[in-house]
Amino acid sequence: MGKCFLVTGGSGFVARHFFDYLETLSEDISVVAVDVCKSGQEFPEYHNITIKIVILDLLDRHGLESILQDSPPDYLLHLASYSSVAYSWEHPDISFANNTNIFLNLLEQVRLFAPECRILSVGSSEEYGKVRPDQVPLLEDAVLHPVSPYAVARVSQELMTRVYVEGYGMDIVLTRSFNHAGPGQKDIFVISSFSRKLAEALIAGKSTIKLFTGNTTIVRDFVDVRDVVRAYHLLLTKGSKGEVYNVCSGIGRTIDEVLMMMSRITGISVQTIMDSKLVRPSDNPIIIGSCTKLMRQTGWQPGIPLERTLQDTLNYWHKQLLNS
Amino acid sequence: MGKCFLVTGGSGFVARHFFDYLETLSEDISVVAVDVCKSGQEFPEYHNITIKIVILDLLDRHGLESILQDSPPDYLLHLASYSSVAYSWEHPDISFANNTNIFLNLLEQVRLFAPECRILSVGSSEEYGKVRPDQVPLLEDAVLHPVSPYAVARVSQELMTRVYVEGYGMDIVLTRSFNHAGPGQKDIFVISSFSRKLAEALIAGKSTIKLFTGNTTIVRDFVDVRDVVRAYHLLLTKGSKGEVYNVCSGIGRTIDEVLMMMSRITGISVQTIMDSKLVRPSDNPIIIGSCTKLMRQTGWQPGIPLERTLQDTLNYWHKQLLNS
Repeated sequence: MGKCFLVTGGSGFVARHFFDYLETLSEDISVVAVDVCKSGQEFPEYHNITIKIVILDLLDRHGLESILQDSPPDYLLHLASYSSVAYSWEHPDISFANNTNIFLNLLEQVRLFAPECRILSVGSSEEYGKVRPDQVPLLEDAVLHPVSPYAVARVSQELMTRVYVEGYGMDIVLTRSFNHAGPGQKDIFVISSFSRKLAEALIAGKSTIKLFTGNTTIVRDFVDVRDVVRAYHLLLTKGSKGEVYNVCSGIGRTIDEVLMMMSRITGISVQTIMDSKLVRPSDNPIIIGSCTKLMRQTGWQPGIPLERTLQDTLNYWHKQLLNS
Repeated sequence: MGKCFLVTGGSGFVARHFFDYLETLSEDISVVAVDVCKSGQEFPEYHNITIKIVILDLLDRHGLESILQDSPPDYLLHLASYSSVAYSWEHPDISFANNTNIFLNLLEQVRLFAPECRILSVGSSEEYGKVRPDQVPLLEDAVLHPVSPYAVARVSQELMTRVYVEGYGMDIVLTRSFNHAGPGQKDIFVISSFSRKLAEALIAGKSTIKLFTGNTTIVRDFVDVRDVVRAYHLLLTKGSKGEVYNVCSGIGRTIDEVLMMMSRITGISVQTIMDSKLVRPSDNPIIIGSCTKLMRQTGWQPGIPLERTLQDTLNYWHKQLLNS
């Protein structure tokens, strides 16, 4: 019998790429994709995996219990989250409570009804927070100094995961996932937002655009979502219980550099205007990860260079906008 | 006009001692004591302070908003919590969610409606978690390794507090408060629980008793609640914004030592029987704090030796049991 994957945030950006990846494995895999609402977008037709979609609020204990008992999962990939840092500054209480309460309810139900299930607890590079330039590339044992409500929620999730591993003996692997990008991402995230604006400009035949931005000198480690989901599968199947792994490219770029690359790809010249409303109360000037541990322990390698990520994301928006 | 204190958990053990302390200051002080339900116990008659009691669920945003607008506080002492480590192992999700959601709602409403109010965010020595014997007495800059759901909630609260101080500029002082004891504490806590059992034995005229215990070799730093509330007042009035302070005695005792002291005070010989149900999934073998920072920055000194704390707690239970 094939393996069963339970995926929360099951109609989201990362989940869709994860299913595409599972399809390529040519194994007999069943997936239960849980999400709080039905996505407008259909899944593609898969041949190697079967997907059952369940609409459920992850705070619903009994609903979760039913899923875990009806389709006992071998693996749980927890992708559901309020993952916008900007939103967390506007609504710190809602962002924090949703992220942590959902995670804890999920852990509790798995502890009670499917304790053998291996879980991937997805964290964030934002957990590192205040980083000195001499600390990069960041190793997993760096001290965490989260500076946003979102980042604190992720650190809390990680600390609680350790309690469940050490106190209750559960089988959980942890990540700190760096900024991911790629086709299908919502345009509240920086690369997708810029890609959409550039695709709009391409369609309108403009040769120059103005973009309102936050601080464009911050350095981030962008990793393609298709590399991310490959890492998640490897960590679920080969990661060590209780260990945390950076999922990143190991390469830092300023937002300005990303914009220049996009300008080169599209031939559109980009002018940025800093909008103080888009500058966050606290922001980390530099975040670059080391993916050495992930590579060494699972054999993972980053495969997609940022240029291709940007090209594919631009193409995605171009197609979306023409079809809408 | 006198100062206004808003105190959550306002009918609880620590709050009552805090009000007793405010009374001794002979200043014109008004107190708003918020609690989720009416306590059976009346407050004593105070002369220097006026207390307004408000029954409110701290998750009620609008209720909190009204309080903050009707009686704008100069100081907020946040004592409401699910503070039992044992309970947190039984109901990790409920314990964590209540502690963090309540705290965040409070912070949000103060940020929006009383941003000038100085807050004391009460944390716990449990935050230190896994401590090596060569690390004690613990200084505030020690790395935190929380091992229980309760401890994780407290670390989360502390991390979120830093975000509110650094990101939103709020005026918050933090504590890590060590095990407190004293008359009036609920008997779910170790010293109060033993005191009650010994007081029962005294009343029954027994000369020897058997106690079911968890691990009695763990070392804890017990501090008298009356010393604690004096520290809280000093920290609210003299502490530094964004700084964290240990509130402790600086002296470590095993649970066995505490039991021996109680045996000497009462003349009752105590036999302990380890009950595996009372042993927690993870427990910290040794926690002793340094109170140097608190003493240096506020002039605080611990005043009440453990012998007196135990005597007063025994007397409290003796009186309670005779009156019930």
